Amino acid sequence: MMAEKTLDNLFHDTLKDIYYAERKILKALPKMARGAQSPELKAAFELHRDETEGQIERLQQVFELIGKRPQGKTCPAIDGILEEGEEILEEFKGEPALDAGLAAAAQAVEHYEISRYGTLKRWAQNLGLKDAVALLDATLQEETKTDKSLSGLADKVANVKAKKAA
Amino acid sequence: MMAEKTLDNLFHDTLKDIYYAERKILKALPKMARGAQSPELKAAFELHRDETEGQIERLQQVFELIGKRPQGKTCPAIDGILEEGEEILEEFKGEPALDAGLAAAAQAVEHYEISRYGTLKRWAQNLGLKDAVALLDATLQEETKTDKSLSGLADKVANVKAKKAA
Repeated sequence: MMAEKTLDNLFHDTLKDIYYAERKILKALPKMARGAQSPELKAAFELHRDETEGQIERLQQVFELIGKRPQGKTCPAIDGILEEGEEILEEFKGEPALDAGLAAAAQAVEHYEISRYGTLKRWAQNLGLKDAVALLDATLQEETKTDKSLSGLADKVANVKAKKAA
Repeated sequence: MMAEKTLDNLFHDTLKDIYYAERKILKALPKMARGAQSPELKAAFELHRDETEGQIERLQQVFELIGKRPQGKTCPAIDGILEEGEEILEEFKGEPALDAGLAAAAQAVEHYEISRYGTLKRWAQNLGLKDAVALLDATLQEETKTDKSLSGLADKVANVKAKKAA
């Protein structure tokens, strides 16, 4: 008889999903930074790129805590979310609304991460993985902070740049 | 010379994106409700299905406010996010961790919506679309509430069901 799939399995699966997502985000951020028109938005993407490296390391530590090797699993959600960012880069290239669109795309990424880390942290608590809770919470706090600062920037770029009509 | 793409265009594009997303969510929710094991989670998905109908109507009103006909535009983000929910339904069918996975998948959907409605509300403010701000904010508040109640349920199903090991 096969073993039942319990919260341990789900936790491991979802860890692989976000590990894939983070590494994909790491590759996407420099492209978004190059595309952004506002120096502040560029800087925000570059900062988040650096943070993402730390978040990937934390995930590797969580894998270690559950005795598994770090491994990604294709995550159609992040593929789709990043695809929308690419569309903005193409369709709004050189246009006044580009930065507003990029900031919004980045916030969609943040919200996906916030939902996944919130979930993983809850499950780690349920599974009694105390050290994993701390690692996942550290990233959750970072993502929440990034989303807030993107909101501030989004207000700025929507006001200044995007309205400059033809 | 072509007109520049400004915040109006971006607002309209993103409205089409979330209109497509909401209609896809409307179709996905009954499947998730049927799949859920816990009566409470089932009920939550059914309630959210009804709310989604109202949210679609609000979007139709926003389209009207900007003088456009309601129209969807393929949104790869929601396609990917819902695909992950389908994977949970298949891979965890009949398993103790199914409901925990479904609640998490639903929270990923909520977070995508929260990010989109937050963005659309900001842009409506920037564009001086007062009535649209009110409509978008009403949905944003609903989505935020749904995410919170799903968090409560997620704690419950992760504790009760998902840990019941083989």
